[in-house]
Amino acid sequence: MIGKSVPRVDAYDKVTGRAKFTDDMILNKCLVAKVYHATIGNGVVKSIDTSEAEALDGVVKVVTFKDVPNHCYPTPGHPWSVELAHQDIADRNLLTGRVRYYGDDIAAVIAEDEVAASRALRLIKVEYEEYPVEIHPRKSMRGSEHPIHLDKKDNILARSNFFIGDVDKGLKESSAVVKRSYKTSIVQHCHIENNISYAYMEKGRIVVVSSTQIPHIVRRVVGQALGIPWGRVRVIKPYIGGGFGNKQEVLYEPLNAFLTMQVGGRPVKIELSREETFANTRTRHSIEYDLVAGVDEEGHLLAKDMHAYSNQGAYASHGHAIAANGLTSWRLQYACPNMRGEAYTVYTNCPTAGAMRAYGIPQASFASECFMEDIATEIGMDPLEFRRKNLIRGYYEDAYLKPIAANTNGIFECLDKGAEYIHWEEKRKAYAHQTGSVRRGVGMALFSYKTGVWPISLEIAGARLSLNQDGSVQLQVGATEIGQGADTVFSQMAAETLHMDISDVHICSTQDTDVTPFDTGAYASRQSFVSGTAVKECAELLKEKILDYARTLMPDEKRELDLDHGWITAGGEQVMATEQLAMESYYSLSNSSVLTAEVSKQVKKNTIATGCCFAEVEVDMKLGKIKVLDIINVHDSGKLLNPQLASMQVHGGMYMSIGYGISEQLILDEKTGRPLNANLLDYKMMTTMDTPELKADFVELNDPMGPYGNKALGEPPAIPCAPAIRNAVLNATGIAFNEIPLTPQRLVEAFLQAGLI
Amino acid sequence: MIGKSVPRVDAYDKVTGRAKFTDDMILNKCLVAKVYHATIGNGVVKSIDTSEAEALDGVVKVVTFKDVPNHCYPTPGHPWSVELAHQDIADRNLLTGRVRYYGDDIAAVIAEDEVAASRALRLIKVEYEEYPVEIHPRKSMRGSEHPIHLDKKDNILARSNFFIGDVDKGLKESSAVVKRSYKTSIVQHCHIENNISYAYMEKGRIVVVSSTQIPHIVRRVVGQALGIPWGRVRVIKPYIGGGFGNKQEVLYEPLNAFLTMQVGGRPVKIELSREETFANTRTRHSIEYDLVAGVDEEGHLLAKDMHAYSNQGAYASHGHAIAANGLTSWRLQYACPNMRGEAYTVYTNCPTAGAMRAYGIPQASFASECFMEDIATEIGMDPLEFRRKNLIRGYYEDAYLKPIAANTNGIFECLDKGAEYIHWEEKRKAYAHQTGSVRRGVGMALFSYKTGVWPISLEIAGARLSLNQDGSVQLQVGATEIGQGADTVFSQMAAETLHMDISDVHICSTQDTDVTPFDTGAYASRQSFVSGTAVKECAELLKEKILDYARTLMPDEKRELDLDHGWITAGGEQVMATEQLAMESYYSLSNSSVLTAEVSKQVKKNTIATGCCFAEVEVDMKLGKIKVLDIINVHDSGKLLNPQLASMQVHGGMYMSIGYGISEQLILDEKTGRPLNANLLDYKMMTTMDTPELKADFVELNDPMGPYGNKALGEPPAIPCAPAIRNAVLNATGIAFNEIPLTPQRLVEAFLQAGLI
Repeated sequence: MIGKSVPRVDAYDKVTGRAKFTDDMILNKCLVAKVYHATIGNGVVKSIDTSEAEALDGVVKVVTFKDVPNHCYPTPGHPWSVELAHQDIADRNLLTGRVRYYGDDIAAVIAEDEVAASRALRLIKVEYEEYPVEIHPRKSMRGSEHPIHLDKKDNILARSNFFIGDVDKGLKESSAVVKRSYKTSIVQHCHIENNISYAYMEKGRIVVVSSTQIPHIVRRVVGQALGIPWGRVRVIKPYIGGGFGNKQEVLYEPLNAFLTMQVGGRPVKIELSREETFANTRTRHSIEYDLVAGVDEEGHLLAKDMHAYSNQGAYASHGHAIAANGLTSWRLQYACPNMRGEAYTVYTNCPTAGAMRAYGIPQASFASECFMEDIATEIGMDPLEFRRKNLIRGYYEDAYLKPIAANTNGIFECLDKGAEYIHWEEKRKAYAHQTGSVRRGVGMALFSYKTGVWPISLEIAGARLSLNQDGSVQLQVGATEIGQGADTVFSQMAAETLHMDISDVHICSTQDTDVTPFDTGAYASRQSFVSGTAVKECAELLKEKILDYARTLMPDEKRELDLDHGWITAGGEQVMATEQLAMESYYSLSNSSVLTAEVSKQVKKNTIATGCCFAEVEVDMKLGKIKVLDIINVHDSGKLLNPQLASMQVHGGMYMSIGYGISEQLILDEKTGRPLNANLLDYKMMTTMDTPELKADFVELNDPMGPYGNKALGEPPAIPCAPAIRNAVLNATGIAFNEIPLTPQRLVEAFLQAGLI
Repeated sequence: MIGKSVPRVDAYDKVTGRAKFTDDMILNKCLVAKVYHATIGNGVVKSIDTSEAEALDGVVKVVTFKDVPNHCYPTPGHPWSVELAHQDIADRNLLTGRVRYYGDDIAAVIAEDEVAASRALRLIKVEYEEYPVEIHPRKSMRGSEHPIHLDKKDNILARSNFFIGDVDKGLKESSAVVKRSYKTSIVQHCHIENNISYAYMEKGRIVVVSSTQIPHIVRRVVGQALGIPWGRVRVIKPYIGGGFGNKQEVLYEPLNAFLTMQVGGRPVKIELSREETFANTRTRHSIEYDLVAGVDEEGHLLAKDMHAYSNQGAYASHGHAIAANGLTSWRLQYACPNMRGEAYTVYTNCPTAGAMRAYGIPQASFASECFMEDIATEIGMDPLEFRRKNLIRGYYEDAYLKPIAANTNGIFECLDKGAEYIHWEEKRKAYAHQTGSVRRGVGMALFSYKTGVWPISLEIAGARLSLNQDGSVQLQVGATEIGQGADTVFSQMAAETLHMDISDVHICSTQDTDVTPFDTGAYASRQSFVSGTAVKECAELLKEKILDYARTLMPDEKRELDLDHGWITAGGEQVMATEQLAMESYYSLSNSSVLTAEVSKQVKKNTIATGCCFAEVEVDMKLGKIKVLDIINVHDSGKLLNPQLASMQVHGGMYMSIGYGISEQLILDEKTGRPLNANLLDYKMMTTMDTPELKADFVELNDPMGPYGNKALGEPPAIPCAPAIRNAVLNATGIAFNEIPLTPQRLVEAFLQAGLI
């Protein structure tokens, strides 16, 4: 089963519309809640008048920041830590009178329907005291008269650094020292299904049905936010229409839970609009990097230094973990005796930034891979050769966080495949001396990526299997299908270990914290690795139980028993149908015992996945238009569980990374921090017509750490295309852009300035 | 916790309307299906024309008996048996062209809404060939030209008998021989919530959400009916508004499953009307008894003989098991050296009879306890003294089915309590010589009742517990809450064994066959006994796991560890909060493992519960009106788990049994078998005004078989009131009625005939 391109288990349901998403499960007579958002970017609410809204027909209740419990709580989807210092930062209440960004949540209306709720919002009257707005981290960290959060006078959420060797000495010994600055922009996940949840009460407990990647963490954070025992919260996760990290955060579920409590447990729904999803959920951090490196005459890196300034926006969210992840990645790829890194995460009056596919590495990798390109250019070396020369070979581990290691390292094979596909050498030569306003170039970039969060944080996963009467099995996992195909590969895993047909594995695609084994959720490209380990162990346990039971039915059978696609075999010979055994286990009058197995598995390992992108572009300098002629990602993600799904993961990631490089950007008004293009018309995701043919290839090394030889693949595809395209543009035009997206406006300005047009 | 009257865990939700029943969970845009019922009582469909119905706006699809798969399937909620001979009788398809009773299911309409579906039904045109209708079993068993089912030429579904000693010899040796005949009427469960289900498809599987007592059995029967593997069916059971055995049958779920398959998996709902619930679900069998007994001069029973004729109606349903259960009960109470029993279950053109609270014993016990009264009267002995003389004392077991045994036997204490309460001796004297048309009398009756179905059938139950982060637990059971309070006593059991507060036990009240531990369901007064055993073992297992984990956290603690209401104790001293342990188990970076326990438990034991009813009545002979002045049930059901819930169970059963004796009867048209009073206006359940004050008392012997000393209580209360009232009427008036209900018409006729009025 492993390694086969079996169709997604949810494919037919999703294309026929049978699959149930949160909105499909909403209970009859569900009330509708809407949030009143601030219309200033920084300040305090001086007064709020909800009387007209409350008097409106159809309005059930209006609550404001004055009504909510005073429990500061954290929102990110990290496993809890029993150590205070490792816990997420709790810096918000359900609603606030201290407005920290344009759109901050001040009040909420509960009404019988959508129309009444919307009308009521317009009747709420708020008076503010306004403070100056600051949306740039390097300015914000100078401090302000009214710190965004009282306990952070300088608006610096956190700062961290590391040192290896002696960077200053290394730079001194270098034959060339290169300094550059890079910046990434704010982008948004743009999952199809906006954030949505509904909540009601049963038996004095709160039930939240939510489109989330992390149901068990939502349970916890709702408990924290309301100050109630976590066991009094139940979270149900239906299918979700994309998350990409934006649903690895506990956003409006706590407010939703609070609102149902305000109306005696009646069902209340909160469904965000697209505009709210842009402005009031999470974005990817814009991070500014100052990089310095020194190389010797042969092109070996002798020293490198990174300073990162991450624009956190108004609330901590995943906060510094993202900038810090970039610091770690700064160590994970290229050999260098002297390294230094320092990162600042800074509160600003921007929409809050959080987790987004690849968690800081698209930013860090963009900076690092542009920088490698620029160093190579500076010292006159082919950038691919320069990288090959500096890449760490074979097994290696992170100097700071030892369990993070490249147990298999296929980056060189990836580079070979990518270079061959794009005809690197020929094209670098062919494009060396172009004239005219339309030019072509090839570029590439690479990355390393961890698999899960150990040892920085906890890795634990659960699975339960039970044998049905017909010999099929039910599989429950705490891990979540978020569109990536998790349920399919978990089913393949169970089928593989149980030697069954995949059609006999029935996976529960809805997580319910009341009954679902505990798992922290879908993030960090962890599930096939960590949760897969739990599935494998659980399947092994069930297999053992089935064979033990078989021995009671065939006490005289001395040969070794095994399972084989619907049969119990002895010495390889079919001796009993699994269905017959299953029927006995349910209904035997002498010895019935329904066979189930459950595993809660802590995983204390990590392994590094790598890969690269090669791109060929055509730049029409007069139009400022980049056309991606050809593009390929080559991944070393260990053994592929399902090659077709793996390719689809890569395609999706490449799409995001190309958009990240070329067109996507959430633009904020400098004066208010108000998003100016918070909708899918003005925020420029690529359409199908804009999207080039996407090519995915793999180097399949069997990783000893992965349950089935596999390692991270969920997020990595979203990393390398943006820098590869930027480098291809450099190759085409000679212009080294230091900021994405490479919009026509930015390109034309640069080409004009360079005298190219 | 055990023995405490804790409030029902679902009390608040049920009284505030928060509790979710099937109709509350119906999906948006659910299609509505309605069944086309035959308008003759016996015959075949010659032609059916659905064209007009199909053309109606809003109609999605019409299916007839010609469209359904040809899989005969059984409907009753018995555990499957791997032996063919022990399997339930499969005698029906989803729809039929052979009409066997008035209202048989011929076709079904699926429409966008209720109105369209109802209109479409009226447009279906059917031509029949009619056969004569027979609604009486003793006539039907003579055979008919067109047997109701082809393989039963004499319309006898089944016949069984038993012999102990030599009845003929016993009768010859007797000083008195008494012969009587008795008959019970057809009644209906009249649960508040009519039968309702909806079905849809996901991942190629069928999901049925149904108000059922037996979700795991529904799963199986849907599989059988559709001819698909059982693992491809998922059944979800929300709260149910009463079942009383009528939902211990798989009625319209298979058709519902079939219908969703006909519309590509779209949700389809089938909600029966009250009229359909009366006519097309199940009733309690009317059974006719011919009884003979001989006694010696001291009043000891020397021989007794029972012939029973059970009116099955059109389909097998639970069939002969019910009459056979009466045969068993004929042996379970009174000592008698020579006994014989024979029972016939006969197909007729009546609505189908099935399981109803106490499964044949209300009928058999009515006959037997009237008979004991009539023998005592005949031989001039006080009927209570006569029973005491003949009751088996102390421990005893059934001669045929050995594991069925009275391990504790509190019947004598029950009789003492009941007699004392009703002032038996005084009133028997006081009412001995009454004149006038209004007279009073006291009467009593008793019963024995098994606890579960072992060894006749399988007893197996499952439970799963998991420890939440806050130290509370989630409890999942396969057993079903059907209004009886099961979830409350299971929660008490877990709390008892885990030494926790009941507020820290969160029970899942919805069963879902995909994830719920296997249990056969709510019937046979089995759950607190059988499923309770699984809950207890599961709690013991979780406790062991918690304490094992505690030892890893406190390796130096040598004292004995235990749990005590939120604490881990060592040598009785609180050493760690359970919450702290739980948090470590989830989040420890060194050793996390979420603690869960699961048990699938076969229970191979049975124990007999007993009890009695004492009633005082006033009979207005001219009005034919019985007023129950005082009535008490006294039960020996072992140790009470929750005295208040136990009393409520008894009250409900008494209510049913009084109605059974006095007012309830489904009346059928002799010519067509059509129910004439299939609605709650004409079918005379007692109103609150009709219902006397109900008194419940108990004899609490600690039964060694019950997990917490408990034995059957769910059904027994519904047994003894009808015969006790009949016997009280006999005491009051001297008229020995042999048929219930004791309606004014029946009474006045008898009193007129006896010259009393």
